Amino acid sequence: MIFHQQFRQPKEQPFTVCERELVCELKMELRTMILGHFLVISLALNVGFLYRDYWKGNHHYQEFFSFKNECQNASVTLLEASPQPFSSSSKGFDGIIDLDHGDPTMYERYWQQMGDKTKVVINGWQFISYFSDVRKVCWFLEPELANSIIRLHKLVGNAITEERYIVVGTGSTQLFQALLYAVSPPNSSEPISVVSAAPFYSSYPLITDFLKSGLHKWAGDAYTFNKDEPYIELVTSPNNPDGFPRQAVVNRNQGILIHDFAYYWPQYIPISSPADHDIMLFTVSKSTGHAGTRIGWALVKDREIAKKMTEFIVLSTIGVSKDSQIRAAKILQVVSDSHQYKGNFKEGQAFFEHSYNNMARRWKQLRDAVNMSKLFSLPDFPSSLCTFSGRTFGSLAAFAWLKCEGEIDDCESFLRGHKILTRGGKHFGSSGKYVRISMLPRDEIFDQFTERLSTINFS
Amino acid sequence: MIFHQQFRQPKEQPFTVCERELVCELKMELRTMILGHFLVISLALNVGFLYRDYWKGNHHYQEFFSFKNECQNASVTLLEASPQPFSSSSKGFDGIIDLDHGDPTMYERYWQQMGDKTKVVINGWQFISYFSDVRKVCWFLEPELANSIIRLHKLVGNAITEERYIVVGTGSTQLFQALLYAVSPPNSSEPISVVSAAPFYSSYPLITDFLKSGLHKWAGDAYTFNKDEPYIELVTSPNNPDGFPRQAVVNRNQGILIHDFAYYWPQYIPISSPADHDIMLFTVSKSTGHAGTRIGWALVKDREIAKKMTEFIVLSTIGVSKDSQIRAAKILQVVSDSHQYKGNFKEGQAFFEHSYNNMARRWKQLRDAVNMSKLFSLPDFPSSLCTFSGRTFGSLAAFAWLKCEGEIDDCESFLRGHKILTRGGKHFGSSGKYVRISMLPRDEIFDQFTERLSTINFS
Repeated sequence: MIFHQQFRQPKEQPFTVCERELVCELKMELRTMILGHFLVISLALNVGFLYRDYWKGNHHYQEFFSFKNECQNASVTLLEASPQPFSSSSKGFDGIIDLDHGDPTMYERYWQQMGDKTKVVINGWQFISYFSDVRKVCWFLEPELANSIIRLHKLVGNAITEERYIVVGTGSTQLFQALLYAVSPPNSSEPISVVSAAPFYSSYPLITDFLKSGLHKWAGDAYTFNKDEPYIELVTSPNNPDGFPRQAVVNRNQGILIHDFAYYWPQYIPISSPADHDIMLFTVSKSTGHAGTRIGWALVKDREIAKKMTEFIVLSTIGVSKDSQIRAAKILQVVSDSHQYKGNFKEGQAFFEHSYNNMARRWKQLRDAVNMSKLFSLPDFPSSLCTFSGRTFGSLAAFAWLKCEGEIDDCESFLRGHKILTRGGKHFGSSGKYVRISMLPRDEIFDQFTERLSTINFS
Repeated sequence: MIFHQQFRQPKEQPFTVCERELVCELKMELRTMILGHFLVISLALNVGFLYRDYWKGNHHYQEFFSFKNECQNASVTLLEASPQPFSSSSKGFDGIIDLDHGDPTMYERYWQQMGDKTKVVINGWQFISYFSDVRKVCWFLEPELANSIIRLHKLVGNAITEERYIVVGTGSTQLFQALLYAVSPPNSSEPISVVSAAPFYSSYPLITDFLKSGLHKWAGDAYTFNKDEPYIELVTSPNNPDGFPRQAVVNRNQGILIHDFAYYWPQYIPISSPADHDIMLFTVSKSTGHAGTRIGWALVKDREIAKKMTEFIVLSTIGVSKDSQIRAAKILQVVSDSHQYKGNFKEGQAFFEHSYNNMARRWKQLRDAVNMSKLFSLPDFPSSLCTFSGRTFGSLAAFAWLKCEGEIDDCESFLRGHKILTRGGKHFGSSGKYVRISMLPRDEIFDQFTERLSTINFS
């Protein structure tokens, strides 16, 4: 903490007096020169410190995905002065390794290798209209994207698409909210309870409650839910943060299940059979790595639910970016092509093969590092047959759910002391002895991480 | 109404029994042949009928922007069978003219003329990350877009950008919600009142209340707001639906103003001076016509508000499509270029010149039609000098606020009887004698509309 505070002060204070553009610009130039190095370190460090009071019924929100700005009231000026992008949180700033967010930059290298195959060209006169296909319940869904989604699910065999409505969203995050809106009783005197088995995705409670909705409320760990009333259970399989396959745990009448299948792809877990649930969520962020594109989709059996989800997305954002839909369509097509038309691709370029190999290598590398350090442990996953690849393997999850063994009760702080930023177990309704670590940064960051982890000892 | 019901029945009933894919496909084929014509008419007609009970404190929502699907439980099958897009609501289906939504397809022709100038190419390895520029409060804002926004505002002179934070959103609709979240007191026992002077944008009440938020509640017409408590006032200028320039009307202590400047561009209204408010909203949907791109931006003075807006957008959609941001950046650059580097463009291709001419011609055409019919009237707008163009003119609003004169109390139904779909005044907190009509459809639709309007007489 001392290390952090030391560098934090210069960033928080000096620019609060920037009241005029010129004064501010001059100050900026001087300070940027002097403080540049400090700021970079401080920024990276802050990532891990921005989590405030975690939701405990007091309407406090975790400041996740949040970065602080250097100059109050001068962002526009600063922006004009420094147009260079600074585009990733996981780059190692002077030794800081940020594996807090699941930013899937691991995938950049694969898509670079694909060259022009995934190039998308959009002309100025295209996608002017709000509308894509007014015959569909989800009238802002581009038919091209819908076709790519169906084709990919059929190829991979991870979800039934027949007799389902496809609803596109600005990431599966928006679709999750659309679903809460769609399945919550509209006229109930009390908001419906939303639960998920701990450890659960840290954003679920925040998203459920941040608008203090009268429709739904977060009710915590599904294992401890014992009310005899309607509820919504979120089933993430394989689970974020711990990578295990999951099934519903409450199993009572009046339950509505939402299956989040963001990670149910053959680079992360064996595909056992096509998922066949009423409500299923997917996203390109984790399947192909295109997080910046913000495209997710829901496969929904019930027409009224699909309709209310569409209504939510219209009220929330009047549809979903057509540009990103077209780009996602192209990317999913190339993923399918890389398996179905291998002749057009180089050896080893089939997408899920390549990604599986990456994940398998990373997990081996991480397990080796954990074994060397002896301070940590990782979950053991049961092996099973993947119907897609024909391989038998255990989870190669997108996050590692690392446990600090022995006396260490705050694993997040302990690792932060070693300049490794992770997300502590308490954010996931679990113990502070655990942390969630992204397995999807760029190669060089992942290598630095495992190398450092392997050398951490009691000291 | 009889005309409507007649065609509505076939669409609502026959496909509810599509329980199996095969059965459904066969039924679809047969019925498509038989009912094709009916469906097309019915679909178009339904657009205007989908508005249900308007918000009157009973938590009923207008089904705006909603279309019905032909075959229950078979959208995916249907989609595979019929991949052809059907991409606009305003195409005249057998005489139906839909001017309900503000779908800005008028702009397609201009952008076609621009050819390759606005072409955007995105490679597969770009925009993988969630992050754009972590030095900024709004860390998912692409620097290229921020620069284009600043450049355009400086060129047009319609808003001060200095000492403002730019927050990008999935359309200004999302930014409006981000603002409600950002400025509502987080721990108040009662939700804050949200008001706007009638006639107000019909979506404001719906968006404010659809999640039954404990943070904010719709409190109706600003002119009748008389509580001595904190409030949020939405000031849309020029106003949607009536096109008049506006200022705040409550003017009491404890008020927070949100200025919606979606239409404060020189094709719609004379630019009087650069707007200099604390919170200002803009969108590409109405400035350049790219509604499908879903990009809006807020200019915000207060750092804490910008930060909380960013937090909202992260919780809501984890940022904003990078692809669309890059595309919007390019489009705004070309708009600026068309004025600043006229040599690279053909005569009359400067964007705001071209669009102004379009709007001026359409308003003349509409006023001529209204004069011929004698059943209707339109607002008279005061003329003033536009600092951008040097012209003196009155509003050339994106919507016409048409009044049915004489005995006609339900102007929306009256026009529907003439197969013109509009949005009735009651949706805007006003009288049913008014309707809002989009002035931004494609040329052929607008021509059909004015021609038909001019021939409507008492009968």
